[in-house]
Amino acid sequence: MASSVEWNGDVRIPSLQAAYRSGLSLVTVVTKLHERISHYKTTDRAVWIRLQTLGSLIGEAEALEAKYSDLDHLPPLYGIPFSIKDSIDIAGLPTTTGLSGFPPLSRTPTSSAPVYDSLIAAGALFVGKTNMDQLATGMTGCRSPYGIPHSVFSAYHIAGGSSSGSAVSVGARLVSFSIGSDTAGSIRLPAAFNGVVGFKPTRGMISARGITPACLSLDCVGVLAGDVDDARRVWEVVRGYDELDPYAKPPSTYRDYSTPLSSDDATVSFTFGIPPPDVSAFSACSPIYLKLFSATVQALQRAGGSCRQVTAAEWHPFEAAGALLYDGTFVSERLASLPDDWLAANSHHLHPTIRAVFEAVVARQSTAVQAYRDLQAKAAYTRQAEHVFQTVDVVVVPTAPTQWTIAEVLDDPVRKNSALGVFSHCANVLDLCAVAVPAGTYPVPRQGGDDDEGGRGVLPFGITLMSGGRMDEKLLDIARRYENVRKTIDETGANSPP
Amino acid sequence: MASSVEWNGDVRIPSLQAAYRSGLSLVTVVTKLHERISHYKTTDRAVWIRLQTLGSLIGEAEALEAKYSDLDHLPPLYGIPFSIKDSIDIAGLPTTTGLSGFPPLSRTPTSSAPVYDSLIAAGALFVGKTNMDQLATGMTGCRSPYGIPHSVFSAYHIAGGSSSGSAVSVGARLVSFSIGSDTAGSIRLPAAFNGVVGFKPTRGMISARGITPACLSLDCVGVLAGDVDDARRVWEVVRGYDELDPYAKPPSTYRDYSTPLSSDDATVSFTFGIPPPDVSAFSACSPIYLKLFSATVQALQRAGGSCRQVTAAEWHPFEAAGALLYDGTFVSERLASLPDDWLAANSHHLHPTIRAVFEAVVARQSTAVQAYRDLQAKAAYTRQAEHVFQTVDVVVVPTAPTQWTIAEVLDDPVRKNSALGVFSHCANVLDLCAVAVPAGTYPVPRQGGDDDEGGRGVLPFGITLMSGGRMDEKLLDIARRYENVRKTIDETGANSPP
Repeated sequence: MASSVEWNGDVRIPSLQAAYRSGLSLVTVVTKLHERISHYKTTDRAVWIRLQTLGSLIGEAEALEAKYSDLDHLPPLYGIPFSIKDSIDIAGLPTTTGLSGFPPLSRTPTSSAPVYDSLIAAGALFVGKTNMDQLATGMTGCRSPYGIPHSVFSAYHIAGGSSSGSAVSVGARLVSFSIGSDTAGSIRLPAAFNGVVGFKPTRGMISARGITPACLSLDCVGVLAGDVDDARRVWEVVRGYDELDPYAKPPSTYRDYSTPLSSDDATVSFTFGIPPPDVSAFSACSPIYLKLFSATVQALQRAGGSCRQVTAAEWHPFEAAGALLYDGTFVSERLASLPDDWLAANSHHLHPTIRAVFEAVVARQSTAVQAYRDLQAKAAYTRQAEHVFQTVDVVVVPTAPTQWTIAEVLDDPVRKNSALGVFSHCANVLDLCAVAVPAGTYPVPRQGGDDDEGGRGVLPFGITLMSGGRMDEKLLDIARRYENVRKTIDETGANSPP
Repeated sequence: MASSVEWNGDVRIPSLQAAYRSGLSLVTVVTKLHERISHYKTTDRAVWIRLQTLGSLIGEAEALEAKYSDLDHLPPLYGIPFSIKDSIDIAGLPTTTGLSGFPPLSRTPTSSAPVYDSLIAAGALFVGKTNMDQLATGMTGCRSPYGIPHSVFSAYHIAGGSSSGSAVSVGARLVSFSIGSDTAGSIRLPAAFNGVVGFKPTRGMISARGITPACLSLDCVGVLAGDVDDARRVWEVVRGYDELDPYAKPPSTYRDYSTPLSSDDATVSFTFGIPPPDVSAFSACSPIYLKLFSATVQALQRAGGSCRQVTAAEWHPFEAAGALLYDGTFVSERLASLPDDWLAANSHHLHPTIRAVFEAVVARQSTAVQAYRDLQAKAAYTRQAEHVFQTVDVVVVPTAPTQWTIAEVLDDPVRKNSALGVFSHCANVLDLCAVAVPAGTYPVPRQGGDDDEGGRGVLPFGITLMSGGRMDEKLLDIARRYENVRKTIDETGANSPP
C-alpha cells in the first residue's frame, strides 16, 4: 500500500533502506520511479529493451511489502530497484542479447540466471532489461537494433557498451544498480562514460550461468552502481561459488585479502602503480584525459596512496595481454558458442557492424596452434602481472582513452571501438579484478549547433583500479578511499580542470 | 672413501638411508650400482641416453660424503641414486628429448630445471638421463632413435612411454627413483609395464620449467619409484610453487586434504569408484586384465575401501575428456611450442612415427574455434568430475587396457599407441592427480620361440588411482593402503590369476 511518507528521490541503497525503515512505501517508490523512467524516455528512448509496466512494478512492490512486513528484519536489498542487461536470463522473459528475436541466441528461458535469483531472494526489485551492444560484442553502445543510447552527460556522446543501457539506467538514477557483463571492458567503459561505478570482479566470483556467452572463458558478470559502497553491497549478495558454472572460482582462502584496509582509516597506506608515461596506451589518450589522469594521481596520493610508476617491463604483460583480446585468437571464441552453420545462415539478421566484425574473425582463419600459443602467452602474462601486484596493491589507469561522439563511432565503427580498450582489455585476459570509478568532469566540447541538447555541459572522466585475481575486497577498499577524497575535491572545486 | 660396510643391494630409500647411517659408503653403492647398470646393458641397451661414468659417479659420491659428514643430519635424499628423463634440463648436459642432436629442441642448457636442482639440494645422486619417446609424444617406448627399451619383465613386451627409460631404470633397480613427465599417461603407463609406482601429481605442483614442452598446458612432472612411500618421499622434496612457471599452482589451502588417512589405521575407511562394466574402455581391455582388475577391487575392499560403481553419467566426463586429448585439438598444442617453419624444415630428422603423427596433426587443420570449443568442454568436464570426487575419494581403473608386444606396436604404431590411453588420458585433461601402482602379475604369453629371453615368465598388471586436483596427499595415502594389502596377497598367493 502507498504511505504518506514522501520519497526524496535518492536511489542510493542506504538512503532507500533508511526511508523504508521509516515507513516509505515501495509502491510510492516504484510509482515515482516509473514517472522518472517515462520522463527520461523523452531524452533517450534506447535505454531499455524490456521495461516492467507500472502495474507489474506495483505488483512486485506489494508482494515484497507483504512478504517482509517486519521493518526491523528486511533482506539486504529490500526494495532496491535494479536493471539487468538483456543477455541475462529471467524465466519467462525473452533474452534478446541485442538480437531482435531469433533463436538460439534470442530465447525465452524457463529458468533464471543465478545472479538474478540471488537478487530477488535478497528482496531487490526488478525494473527492466537494458539495451546492449549486440551479442555483447562492442564497447561503444552503438551496435544495437534497439537504438543507440547516449551518455547521460551529453546527447552527442556515446554511452559506451556493451552494457550501455545498464550504465545509463544507473547514471540517470532510474535504478539503484544494474547487472552487466564484461569481457573486454563492457561494464567499465559505459560506467566511465556515464559517471557511475563499474565493478568487474575476478572472473568466476559471480555465476555466469544463464548468460548468453560472448567469449565464454573470459565473460565476467559484474555490477554498475552509483558509488563503490553500493557496488559492494550488491556484490556481497550475488557473489558465490556456483558449481554448475565451469568457470566459477572454487572457494579459496589462498588469495583472499586477510587484512582489509579500513577505508576510514587514513593512517593505513596503500601503494598504487601507474604505467610509465611513454606507453602506447597513453599516446592514444586525449590531452584532457592525460591532464585529468595526472590530477587523479595527486588525489590518490592525498587518499593515502603511495605512487609507483611501474617499469616498462612490468607494464609489458598488461599491454601484450590486452592486445591478445582483439588482435589474437580470443575473438574466435565468440564463434565457439555458436553452431558451425549459424553465422552463414543468420548473418543477414545481425547488426551491420557485428556482421562485419564476425566476418572478419572468420576471414582470419585462426588455427588451433595459434589459439594454444595465445593461451600459453596468456598464462605467462598472467604470472608476470601477479608479480607486479606483489609490489603494488592496485594499478591505476584511465578507464578509456577518450569518449567518442556517436557520430565519430558511426563513421568508423570498428576502429573507434577497438581504440577504447587500450586500458580495459588486460583485466579480462589477466583475470584481474577491476573497478571503474568517476574521477571528475571536464567541459564538453561544442557539438554541431550552439546548445548541447539534453546535456550537462560537461563530460565525465573516470579511472580504473585493477588488482590481482581474488583481491576484490582490497580493490573495493582502495576505490572507496579514492572516492572519499574525490568528494572533497568535487565539493571544494580543487583540481578542477582548466 | 669406500668402507667395509657391505651393501645389500636394496635401492629403496629407507633401506639405503639406514645403511648410510650405519656407515655404508656412497662410493661402495655407486660402484656396485655401476656394475649392475653395466650388467643390465647385456639385457637392454636402450635404457639410457646419457649415463654418468664410474669416475663421475664416484666423484659425486665423494663430494656428497665430504659435504654431509654428520651422519645424524643427512638431507632427505642423501645418496639416493636417481635417473631423469632426457627432456629435463641439467646445466651443461645436452637435453635431447629423444632427438638425436639438433636445435632448438635438442640443446645444452646453461641452467638446470628446478626439479633437478631441488633433488641435488636434497643430497640425491644423479646417475643418468633416460631414453624416451621422441618429443614425449607416445606411450609405447618404441619411438626413439636411441633404441627401444623393453619391459623389465619380458624382452618381447613394450616398456611403455614416453618415460620409458625412467621406468626401466627403476624396475631393474638401477636407481631408486626417476623423474619423468606425463601429458597423456607417460609416467603411469611405463610404470605399469615395469611393475613400479608412477605418480602424476596435480599439474603444476612440481615446476615444469626447464622441461621441453610436449603439450605445455597439460605437461606434468612426476615421479617413478619402487613403492608409494618412496614416490612420496621424492614428491615432498620436489613439490613447491615456482612462480616462474606460468602453469604452477599457487599455494592454496582450498583443496588441501586436511584430515589425512593414516595408511596404518585400517579402521579409517575410504570410498573408491570404478567405472560401470559396459564402458568402452573396458571393452578395449584384454580378458586377463579384466580378471585382474576384478581381483583388485576385492583387494581394495580388503584394504578398507568401500566400492561404488559410478554411473554412466558420472563416467562420461572421464571418457569424453580423455577422447579430447588425441581426437580433439589438444594435439595441436604440441606444435604450438615449435616455430612455424620448424616442422617443414626438420621433419626428415624425426622418428618416422613421430613424423607421421605430426603430419597428421597438421593435416587436420584444426581451427581456433574448435580449440576454444575443446577448452570449454574441458572446463565443463573438469567441473563434472569434481562432483564425482565429492562422493568417492578416488576412482580406480586399470592403468592400461593391455601390454602390447614390441612387434605388435611396430606393426601398427599409431593405433596401438592411442589404444593404450583409454584410462590415462582423462587425468591430464581433467587436471587430476593419479598414481599407478602394481597389482599383481600374470603368466606371460609365449612369444616366438620356446624361451622368453631375459624374461621373468610373468607380466605385471597395474591399476591407477585418480583423485581431484590438489588431493595428492589423500591419493597417496589410499594407494599405500592398497599396496599394503597387495603385499599380503603376493606373499600368500591369494587371488593369483588362474
